[in-house]
Amino acid sequence: MINASIIGATGYIGGELLRLLHNHPRVRIRSITSRSYTGKKYGEVFENCRHMNDLILEEENIEEIAKESDVIFLALPHGLAMQKVNGDILSNTKIIDLSADFRLKDWQVYEKWYGVEHNAKELLSEAVYGLCEIKRDEIKQARLIANPGCYTTCSILSLYPLIKEGVLDPDSIIIDAKSGISGAGRAPSLGLHYAEANETTKAYKVAAHRHTPEIEEQLFNTTLTFTPHLIPMNRGVLATCYGKLSDTSNPLRYKDISEIFQSYYGDEFFIRLTGDGVLPETKWVRASNFMDIGFVIDERTNRVIVVGALDNMVKGAAGQAVQNMNILFGFDEKTGLDGLPTFP
Amino acid sequence: MINASIIGATGYIGGELLRLLHNHPRVRIRSITSRSYTGKKYGEVFENCRHMNDLILEEENIEEIAKESDVIFLALPHGLAMQKVNGDILSNTKIIDLSADFRLKDWQVYEKWYGVEHNAKELLSEAVYGLCEIKRDEIKQARLIANPGCYTTCSILSLYPLIKEGVLDPDSIIIDAKSGISGAGRAPSLGLHYAEANETTKAYKVAAHRHTPEIEEQLFNTTLTFTPHLIPMNRGVLATCYGKLSDTSNPLRYKDISEIFQSYYGDEFFIRLTGDGVLPETKWVRASNFMDIGFVIDERTNRVIVVGALDNMVKGAAGQAVQNMNILFGFDEKTGLDGLPTFP
Amino acid sequence: MINASIIGATGYIGGELLRLLHNHPRVRIRSITSRSYTGKKYGEVFENCRHMNDLILEEENIEEIAKESDVIFLALPHGLAMQKVNGDILSNTKIIDLSADFRLKDWQVYEKWYGVEHNAKELLSEAVYGLCEIKRDEIKQARLIANPGCYTTCSILSLYPLIKEGVLDPDSIIIDAKSGISGAGRAPSLGLHYAEANETTKAYKVAAHRHTPEIEEQLFNTTLTFTPHLIPMNRGVLATCYGKLSDTSNPLRYKDISEIFQSYYGDEFFIRLTGDGVLPETKWVRASNFMDIGFVIDERTNRVIVVGALDNMVKGAAGQAVQNMNILFGFDEKTGLDGLPTFP
Amino acid sequence: MINASIIGATGYIGGELLRLLHNHPRVRIRSITSRSYTGKKYGEVFENCRHMNDLILEEENIEEIAKESDVIFLALPHGLAMQKVNGDILSNTKIIDLSADFRLKDWQVYEKWYGVEHNAKELLSEAVYGLCEIKRDEIKQARLIANPGCYTTCSILSLYPLIKEGVLDPDSIIIDAKSGISGAGRAPSLGLHYAEANETTKAYKVAAHRHTPEIEEQLFNTTLTFTPHLIPMNRGVLATCYGKLSDTSNPLRYKDISEIFQSYYGDEFFIRLTGDGVLPETKWVRASNFMDIGFVIDERTNRVIVVGALDNMVKGAAGQAVQNMNILFGFDEKTGLDGLPTFP
Repeated sequence: MINASIIGATGYIGGELLRLLHNHPRVRIRSITSRSYTGKKYGEVFENCRHMNDLILEEENIEEIAKESDVIFLALPHGLAMQKVNGDILSNTKIIDLSADFRLKDWQVYEKWYGVEHNAKELLSEAVYGLCEIKRDEIKQARLIANPGCYTTCSILSLYPLIKEGVLDPDSIIIDAKSGISGAGRAPSLGLHYAEANETTKAYKVAAHRHTPEIEEQLFNTTLTFTPHLIPMNRGVLATCYGKLSDTSNPLRYKDISEIFQSYYGDEFFIRLTGDGVLPETKWVRASNFMDIGFVIDERTNRVIVVGALDNMVKGAAGQAVQNMNILFGFDEKTGLDGLPTFP
Repeated sequence: MINASIIGATGYIGGELLRLLHNHPRVRIRSITSRSYTGKKYGEVFENCRHMNDLILEEENIEEIAKESDVIFLALPHGLAMQKVNGDILSNTKIIDLSADFRLKDWQVYEKWYGVEHNAKELLSEAVYGLCEIKRDEIKQARLIANPGCYTTCSILSLYPLIKEGVLDPDSIIIDAKSGISGAGRAPSLGLHYAEANETTKAYKVAAHRHTPEIEEQLFNTTLTFTPHLIPMNRGVLATCYGKLSDTSNPLRYKDISEIFQSYYGDEFFIRLTGDGVLPETKWVRASNFMDIGFVIDERTNRVIVVGALDNMVKGAAGQAVQNMNILFGFDEKTGLDGLPTFP
Repeated sequence: MINASIIGATGYIGGELLRLLHNHPRVRIRSITSRSYTGKKYGEVFENCRHMNDLILEEENIEEIAKESDVIFLALPHGLAMQKVNGDILSNTKIIDLSADFRLKDWQVYEKWYGVEHNAKELLSEAVYGLCEIKRDEIKQARLIANPGCYTTCSILSLYPLIKEGVLDPDSIIIDAKSGISGAGRAPSLGLHYAEANETTKAYKVAAHRHTPEIEEQLFNTTLTFTPHLIPMNRGVLATCYGKLSDTSNPLRYKDISEIFQSYYGDEFFIRLTGDGVLPETKWVRASNFMDIGFVIDERTNRVIVVGALDNMVKGAAGQAVQNMNILFGFDEKTGLDGLPTFP
Repeated sequence: MINASIIGATGYIGGELLRLLHNHPRVRIRSITSRSYTGKKYGEVFENCRHMNDLILEEENIEEIAKESDVIFLALPHGLAMQKVNGDILSNTKIIDLSADFRLKDWQVYEKWYGVEHNAKELLSEAVYGLCEIKRDEIKQARLIANPGCYTTCSILSLYPLIKEGVLDPDSIIIDAKSGISGAGRAPSLGLHYAEANETTKAYKVAAHRHTPEIEEQLFNTTLTFTPHLIPMNRGVLATCYGKLSDTSNPLRYKDISEIFQSYYGDEFFIRLTGDGVLPETKWVRASNFMDIGFVIDERTNRVIVVGALDNMVKGAAGQAVQNMNILFGFDEKTGLDGLPTFP
C-alpha cells in the first residue's frame, strides 16, 4: 500500500482522481485539499461521496503532506501547480501534475501560450511527459510527471505512429477535436450555463488553443492546425485527424496503415484499435481509461482520417494519472483501471 | 469463485450485469446468451467491451447452462422469463430473474396487469422478492429471486418505513416518478427516437403502469397513485412521494420522521439518507448501487414529501441483482458494488 | 401601431419578448434597456439578433420611456420591478410587469414569501392578474398587469375549472411540476452549470417555492402542495396535478370532466384539450403560446390526474405578456402569437 | 395568394415546411400527403398542430394535386422524388424537390453515390440547384428546383467566395461538419435511439457521404474531404472548413478575406457575417433561415478556417425551399422567413 494525496480535490479532475483511487487496491488516500472548502466533509461538496463521512478537505500544506505521501497528484489550474513543486518536495514524494505547467520543455513557449511567467524552469528538464504508452520507460524513473491533457492525449495517440513513421505530409496535419463540457471545469460562466451550452455546438479558440504547442512538441515539432469544439454532453473527446499520405506514387492502403498502428499499439491494453469499417464513438469509452482509434483512407484525396476517442476525465486526465502512478510504483498498469466503460 | 451466466445479455440490463460481474472478484462468467446475436462476439454488440475478444454470445440453452452455472441471471422481457424456469433448472442453479414474472404473488393480478397467461404459477409462492434491504433473510434461503424493477425499488424503499410505521394516511399516497430513457430498453421506437425524446418531458401510462401492483403489494397492499414520467437523460430514477401524516392532532416533525428512516436504513450501506435541507438528485448515484433518500415536511398541508433517487440500471436492476447474488452466496453484500458514482 | 418598450431586455424573458414583438404587426419597438449592457448593440448580447444593427440597449430611464411608449414590459427581478412603477408612470403608459411584484393581493403574503419589503402597496389593488383566459375582462380595463409566471400559469389553468366547479376535494391537491432550465434565468451558478444540470433531475424548494401562494390565491385560496423539479432541457413546463374527486358516491367519469374543461376552454385558441388517451408533452408547445391540457381518471383511487404543458418562455412569460398587450389594446388576441410550435 | 402542396408531409422536413408555410401571408396550403398516415388528421401525427382540425393527410395523387397547386414541395426520400416529376406535372405546377434526385447534373455520379438508377435523366439539365444566394437568377426562371441539403448548403456557402476567388489551394480543402440528429430523419433506428445517441459523438460515412459530390460540383469541381459527425442536439449544422491560402509569398490577412465575404454576402439578408473575433454557434440560428459565417486565419500554418452555422431544418431544408418559392413567384425573399431565431 502506498499513500496518495490530492491537492485540489474539488474540481472535476480531483473528483475523478478520488473515484479511481478509492477503488485502487494498492492505495490509501492520505490527504485531500481544497482552498474553497477547507474543513468541509468531501461528501458535502461532491455528494456522490456523501457516505464517506470521514473524508475531510484539508488545507493545502504541501510540505507536510509530502512527508507522509508516496505520491501527490496536483489537480490545480496552470500557474498554481508550478508554485507547489520544488526539490525539497520531490525529495520526499513523487509528483503527478495534471496541469500544463511542466508539459512543455521550453519555458519560452510556455510563457508565450499561457501568458504567465514560469517560475520553476529548473524542473522542466527533469519532468517527464506522462503519456504512458509513449513514455513508459522514462516514467518509471521519474520524480515529476507532467500528466497530459484530454485534447492532447487524444490527438497525440491518434497521430503518433503515422507521424513517427513519416507516412504523412507534415504540412497537411489538421486536428478537429470535439469535447464534452466537463472539460471546461467546474467554475460557472455564461458560456457553460446549461441553457447556453445545451442544444448547440461551436468552435472556440480557433488557431489559438494552448494545447497546440503540447501536441506539436510530442509529434516531433510538426506545425499543425488544432481546432477544439464544445459538444453538449458531459464527457468525451473525439479527435478527427487529417493528413495527406506523403508517398503519392505508391500510396499506402488500409492494411499498411493498420499494420503501423498494430505495431505501436497492438499490445497496449488501454488502446483499442477498432478495425476496418468501425470508428470510435465517445460513448464506448465513457468513464473508462480506454482510448479507441480507427481510421479511413480517403482515396479520392489521398488523405488518412484517423478518429480517436477517450473520456476526457479518465484517459484524458485522472485515469492516465493513475496509470502513471502504477508505472511509477511498479504496479500492474491496469490496477484500479480495469472497469468496463459504463453504457449507456 | 462461482460461475454466473446471463440469459439475454444484449439488452441494456444484460450489458450492465456484465459490466458489474466483470469486476466481481468472486465471479467467473460462464455463459452469455442472445437470440438476435448468437455466435457474435459480445464486443461487436456492446462496443464498450470491444477488447474482450473471447466473449461469445451463445444460444439460449438454459438446461445446459444451468448445469454449469451456480447462478443464472435472466434479463429477458416479461412473459419469456417464466418459460425458462422450472424445478429441474432450480435443482441445478439459482435463478435471479430481472423480469416481472415472479414479482407478484397472485397470478391473477399478474395476468390482469400484464395481459398474458402466467405459466409457472407453481413457482410464485417459492419466489422471493429480491428487495435486498427488506427481504434479506428470505433471500438467503431462496432458489428463485424476483429482482425488483427500477420504479418499484425507488418507490418502495422511499415509502416503506413510513407506511410500515403507520404514520401516513393510506388513502393519500401518490408517487410521481421520473425516469431516464434507458429504462425503456434498447429496442428503437418513435417515442424513444432521439429527436422525439430530447428536449421534452411527458407522463405516460398514467394510472395504468404495470409497476403499480408490485409497489402496492410490497407496501402492505396500500392502494396508491403511481405516475411515471420520461426525462431526457440516459440513466436515473427520481421518485417524489407524497403522503399525509395520519395523526393531525400531534403531527410528526422532521426529527421524528428522520428517526424512523434511521432505524430502518441507518446501517444499510447502499441507502444514503441525505439529511435535513438536502434532497437527492439522480446525478449523485449515477452508475452506482446507491439509493439516496431525503424528505421535507410541508407543515401547511400536513404532508411528507419523500424524494428517492437511484440509477435505474444499477440499484434499479443489475446492481440489485448482483447484491442479491452476494446475499445468496454469502459474499459481503458490497462485493463488486463498491465503486463510487461517476460524476459528472 | 403602438410603441412598446422593454425594461430589462437582456434576460431570457426580455429576449423572448423582443422575439415576439419583432414580428408583431401592430407594434414598433421604442426602447430596450439594460443595466449591464447599456450602450451596446443588442445583437452583441443576444447574437440571434446579430443582424439588427440599429437596436441599441439604453439606460433604464423609465420616466422618459413612459412618455413615448404605449406599453412598457418590465422584465426585471422581483423587488426591482415595483420600484419602477408609480401613478405618474401609469398616467403615461400601460405596464405589463413580468415579475412577481404585483401578483399577490396581500402585501403581507408577498413579504413573507419573498423576504423583501413591498414598497408599492398602493398599487396592489389596482393591478390585474394577467391570466388571460381567466381575467380577460379585467385586463381590458387595466393600467397595470401582473403577468403570471410559468409554473403558475401551467398549474392554475390545469386546475381552475375543476376547482371552480368544486369537483375536487380541496385537501387533496398536489401539483408536481417539471421545468426546463431556462426558467431559472441567465445568471450562471453552480447548479445551472451544464455538467451539473445535464443528465440529472431533482426536486427543489420543496414546500417552499414562491409560486405557491400565487397559485393558491388564484385557485380560490386552496391550500395545496407544489413541488417544482428541474429537467435537463432548455424550455418547457409540465405540471402533473392530482386531486381526489369530492363526490365518491357518484364519481365523475371521463366525459363529465371533459365537459367541464370544454365549457371553460372550448373556445380558447391558446388552450388545446388533448382528448381521451392523449396527454401533453412539452415538445408539442415549444416556442409557442399554446397550453395543452389532458387528464386521466384513476378509478382505483378516485383521483383525477390533470397534465398541463406550456413553454415557460412563451405562455409562461413573454407570450402571455404579448397576449395581455393584445387584450389591452383591442388587437386580436392571436396577433403575433400564431406561429406553430417548432418541432423537433 | 398561391396554392402550395406538400408531398410527404409527415417527415421532419415536411413538418417544418408546414410550419413555415402556415405563417406565410401569400400562401394557401392546398394539399398535404402521406403514405403512412393517409386519411388522418395532421394534428394526430404532428401534435404541435393538434388545433388544426381540418388539415387532413391525403393520398399521394400528384397529378391531381399538380392541377390545383401553383407549387409542390416534394419532401420524399431520394429515389422516390424523381418518380413523381415529369413534363406533364411541370406544365401544371412548379416543383421544389427537397431530395437529392435533381441536385447532381451528371446521372452517372448520382448512380454511383446513391446506388439507384436515375429514371428522370431528361430533367437533370433543366433542374436548377436552388442555392438561393448563388443561383438566384436561374431560380427565377425555373420550373424544377433541386433544393440543397443541410450539409451542402452550410459547406458550399462557407467556402464559395474563397474558392471562386481562387485564394485557396484546391488540394487542401477539408470540411469537418457536425449535425444535430433531426438531420437523420424521423424513422427510428438503433443509432438514433435516445440512449444511444445522447451523451456521445461520432464521425460517420467518412470519405463516403453522399453529399460530397454535390458540394464538389457547386464548388467548381474541387475534390475535397467531407466528414460528417452526429452531435447530441435536435437541430443545427456547424461546418468547420479548412483550406490553405494559395499565395504563400504574400498571404492574405483577415481584412482581405473579410472583404471577399462582404462582396459576396454583404447584401444578403439571410447570411450574417460574424465579424472579427466572433464565430458562429448553431444556437444563434435555431429555427430561423439565417446562416452565420465567420473565419480565422491560422498564420502559423497559412490556413483559413471558415466556420458556418445553420439550422438543418430551415436554411438547410424547408426554409431554403420557401426562399426558393419566394424567388420563383416574385415575392420578397424574406416573406414568411423573417422570424428571429428562438433562443435559448
